[in-house]
This record gives sequence, C-alpha cells and structure tokens, in this order.
Amino acid sequence: MNDKGAALYEVLRQVRPLVLNSARAVEASLRPERLTVGMRAVLEVLAEHGPAPVPAVAERLDLARQGVQRHVNDLIDLGHVVAKENPAHRRSVLITLTPAGAELFDRIREDELKTLAGLAADCTPAEIAAALKVLTALNRDVRRRTA
Amino acid sequence: MNDKGAALYEVLRQVRPLVLNSARAVEASLRPERLTVGMRAVLEVLAEHGPAPVPAVAERLDLARQGVQRHVNDLIDLGHVVAKENPAHRRSVLITLTPAGAELFDRIREDELKTLAGLAADCTPAEIAAALKVLTALNRDVRRRTA
Repeated sequence: MNDKGAALYEVLRQVRPLVLNSARAVEASLRPERLTVGMRAVLEVLAEHGPAPVPAVAERLDLARQGVQRHVNDLIDLGHVVAKENPAHRRSVLITLTPAGAELFDRIREDELKTLAGLAADCTPAEIAAALKVLTALNRDVRRRTA
Repeated sequence: MNDKGAALYEVLRQVRPLVLNSARAVEASLRPERLTVGMRAVLEVLAEHGPAPVPAVAERLDLARQGVQRHVNDLIDLGHVVAKENPAHRRSVLITLTPAGAELFDRIREDELKTLAGLAADCTPAEIAAALKVLTALNRDVRRRTA
C-alpha cells in the first residue's frame, strides 16, 4: 500500500521540473517567431478546437482571462489571429486563426514532434503508453480531490 | 518516428495540469498547518538533505533566492526551522529543521503517501514504474537541451 504511495510520489516529483524545463526549451525555440509559451498555447487551442471567445480559451488553459487577452492582443499584432463577430452572442467576439497563424502553428507543431521523437531514446512505446495512462489517471483523481 | 513524438507530446500535455492540480490539492491539505506549498518544499529539502544555506535550497528547488528566504522566514516564525551559524562560512547561516519541524514534515509526508496510495487505482506497479522511467528520461533530455 505504502509502496504504491511512494512510487506515485516519485512520479509526481518528476513533473514540476519537467514543466519548468520544457517551458524553457519551448520558449527558446519560439523566440525566432517572436512568440511566447502563452501565445503558443492560445494558438494550439484555436488550432485544435476552432474559433473561441477569450474566456473559453482561458478555461481550457487553466489561465486567467486577462493573461489570455494579452496573448490574443499580441497575436493580433503579429497577424496570427483576428477577432470576429460571434454570431451566437452579439456582445462577444470569436478569436480565429488567420491562414498565416494556422500555417505557423502547423510548422511549430511539426518541429516539436521531430524534437520530441529524439528524446527518451531508452524508453519503449509500451513504456511511453504506460506513462500516459498513469499521468491521465493521476490527473483525473487529483482533479476529483480538488473539485 | 513521428508516432513516438506524438506519444511523448501527449505525455507532456498531461504534466502541466497535473502540476497545477496537485499543487492545489497539497495547498488545501497544508492549510490547517498554516503552511504553503513553498514552505513545504523547503521543509522537504531540509528533511532529505540536512541543514543548508538559503541559496543551496533555492537551487535545489529551481526557485528564486528571495522567495526561499521568505518561506524560511515564515518557517522560523512558526518554529519549524532555525538559522544556525555555518561552521564552513562565517558570513552565511545554515537553515536547520527544529525537532518540531522534523516531526511535522514526517507527519505531512505520511499523510501524503496514504493519499497517494489511493490514487490511480487502475494502474499496475509496472505501469507506474514505466511512468517514472519515461519522466526521468524526459527530464534528463529536456534539461540537456536547455543547458
């Protein structure tokens, strides 16, 4: 019983440094595009889920609305997204990728997948699948405890 | 090749929400002790590695020195740590757990392990071990890229 607790403790210990260090790595790779990690995260939500109002993007990212609004403003300045009228709500706008923004995100994603494919060379696909299963289960259970 | 990149991408996607949500869960459990997640992290370093000066604690935690100094001050106020003269460096001090601080951390750790043992009930010890292996490998390789 306590062995399992200790094993999961070791797993959780790895996640915080991994978040910090992978954010640094992503940040460095985005610098030539004048993007931050936050701006990249907004592009990703729009690429995967389509146009959305700022509060919906913020909720998906677990980020404050004002922070997301700042990222959106910066992305508008760079021409990667536009604010379009929301047919469902006259007083809100939908943030939408421009073709240039969509293309940029595709390129970023492809580069990232190439980089990732070269990491953890000593791990098998089965081990990586197990890692995903364990992390997904932990997310589910930890979220349940904080709800 | 790209399958592996995509699989690791899914793994990395789980880690940020897990860090956020487990910090929230730990925070809630520490509130009755008047501790924050940061103060708990300082206690943990001292419990595992023994007395240390503030900059050494900050480095282990990947946190700013001033933040750690604040946590240490709060822990001193609660009687969980004391600053002792450093025999090796006359001008620096070693932060040291008090017996009460050591006892508190043991209790916190035990409670956490009990809670953790109840999570991810659908995962086997082998899957958890694989998760630890993959995360450790990712940490090693991502850190190498940012160094």
